[in-house]
Amino acid sequence: MRAIQYQSKEQPLALSLIDDPVAGIDEVIVNLKYSALNHRDVFITKGLYPNLRPGTVLGSDGVGEWQGKEYLINPNIDWGPDQQLPADEYHILGMPDDGTFAEKIAIHPDRLVRKPEHLTSSQAAALPLAGLTAYRVLFSRCQLSAEDRLLVNGIGGGVALFVLQFALAIGAEVWITSSSQEKIDRARGIGATGGILYSEDNWHKSLKKNSGGFDVIIDSAGGAGFSQLISTANKGARIGIYGGSCGPILNLSPQVIFWKHLNIFGSTMGSDQDFTAMVDFVDQYTIVPVVDSVFALADFKRGFDRMDHGLQFGKIVLDNRRLD
Amino acid sequence: MRAIQYQSKEQPLALSLIDDPVAGIDEVIVNLKYSALNHRDVFITKGLYPNLRPGTVLGSDGVGEWQGKEYLINPNIDWGPDQQLPADEYHILGMPDDGTFAEKIAIHPDRLVRKPEHLTSSQAAALPLAGLTAYRVLFSRCQLSAEDRLLVNGIGGGVALFVLQFALAIGAEVWITSSSQEKIDRARGIGATGGILYSEDNWHKSLKKNSGGFDVIIDSAGGAGFSQLISTANKGARIGIYGGSCGPILNLSPQVIFWKHLNIFGSTMGSDQDFTAMVDFVDQYTIVPVVDSVFALADFKRGFDRMDHGLQFGKIVLDNRRLD
Repeated sequence: MRAIQYQSKEQPLALSLIDDPVAGIDEVIVNLKYSALNHRDVFITKGLYPNLRPGTVLGSDGVGEWQGKEYLINPNIDWGPDQQLPADEYHILGMPDDGTFAEKIAIHPDRLVRKPEHLTSSQAAALPLAGLTAYRVLFSRCQLSAEDRLLVNGIGGGVALFVLQFALAIGAEVWITSSSQEKIDRARGIGATGGILYSEDNWHKSLKKNSGGFDVIIDSAGGAGFSQLISTANKGARIGIYGGSCGPILNLSPQVIFWKHLNIFGSTMGSDQDFTAMVDFVDQYTIVPVVDSVFALADFKRGFDRMDHGLQFGKIVLDNRRLD
Repeated sequence: MRAIQYQSKEQPLALSLIDDPVAGIDEVIVNLKYSALNHRDVFITKGLYPNLRPGTVLGSDGVGEWQGKEYLINPNIDWGPDQQLPADEYHILGMPDDGTFAEKIAIHPDRLVRKPEHLTSSQAAALPLAGLTAYRVLFSRCQLSAEDRLLVNGIGGGVALFVLQFALAIGAEVWITSSSQEKIDRARGIGATGGILYSEDNWHKSLKKNSGGFDVIIDSAGGAGFSQLISTANKGARIGIYGGSCGPILNLSPQVIFWKHLNIFGSTMGSDQDFTAMVDFVDQYTIVPVVDSVFALADFKRGFDRMDHGLQFGKIVLDNRRLD
């Protein structure tokens, strides 16, 4: 079969012809229809993940067919029974286990979750990893309720858009930031109340004044802007952190943290229970993932480039049956 | 009566002869026996608090007599009904309301709480503000349990010592840091399992290795050392922040926060319900506050100097009946 394998730091990815996967004990073979990119995949190509194993098929998100039915793949492996924390052996499909950027995958059937009926196969492929990350940070960690005013810092990526959509679904008021006016406008089209360019001087002061301040803030940037970000927090706010694309947080005031009684929660991925709850939520509120673009599997490099340059608004999907 | 009044930034404090307080509607006059110093009082003398009102009698902690019985004074004013957060009008006795560094105080009787029987009057005066701060950050915020291993960063101050004592009382394992070997030894004498000088190179690595890592960390420093501090945290740890004596937190890794699923909680003071729970806890476990020293009210400057130089181990108490 054809599959995108991680090769080496110098020449990270290639669409290779490899042996079909063989089902291990209790595993089944799923014919993959669509997959989707995550920042994780781009980080892996840059050598920014530990213990990279050459020859691994990348890809965490996938939708495929088994015994005539279509399934989402739950990318969690060995989270374990503790809802609060993953077990030490926890990892994500697609490194070091072979992932979804291939024609087929050998996988335990307990990783297969029914595809929500209102979604096309390519929409559903956009859901797993980003939807899980968004669901956990927003609900399991930050306990968002309809009465909260939410700020999503940096709209456009898969997780941030699910955060926006999930929050709107329950009736919360959502504001967003971006470096792109076009992305702000598109987010407002989806239902965001307001947004601001974080490249503007004193953006945080305008945003706090215009919005009235935030009860929940979701961030994946960190960096020098984090202090401005939490200056927009209301007393008792919950701040969810699921990434750090702008590097270390600089000059964070302990006084702001304790005077405002802030709650800062780190979050990454989620448990199997979170995954099931997320899919149920998407069903219940008929959430449709925002798909930025669909590339042929053979054309994966254009998808990786698009994500690497932050051009996307929504998920970048691969069509696993288009092989040349 | 004699009282220590805040005067001005240039000449902050003086023991003045002023009119006796007059009980307002629903207030009573309490004859004060002992009071105690808090960092707050020292910060006020340095102009580091907002809205300083010249002529205010300082002091948040006090024990006094009313109708022949002895009471602790609850220094909370107008916390309000929400257990999670104080109301906007919340403030602490001793600025802008007249406080406890005086012979008498006019106060609402709902601020009077029975003195635990096992404590002397001077020990009890050490309890209110520091005990409340410690109780809330440790239990209401960080949910410390007997199974947790706790790190108290910077032992010696009033709050840190209550954190140590409260945690030991419920059977948790406690480690401490300090810049002073003498303070570490004294904390070990109270029951700390181990301690380390944070002035040592790689103190955080030794500490993590020797302890096995921490489930709860209580900090009032912030500053450049905060990143080292949280490198000793276990996955899922709760970090309680109630102060920031070392200034802004520098170079904090978002990756550490999300990979470890950390929980960071800001906390300051506590509700009336926390106060009652704290006094009940002190009763139940017969906690005896560590009193560093007792100065005559007339000799208050020596007490302020001692706190300003960080020399104390425990609370600095004033004897309000020694007026010269």
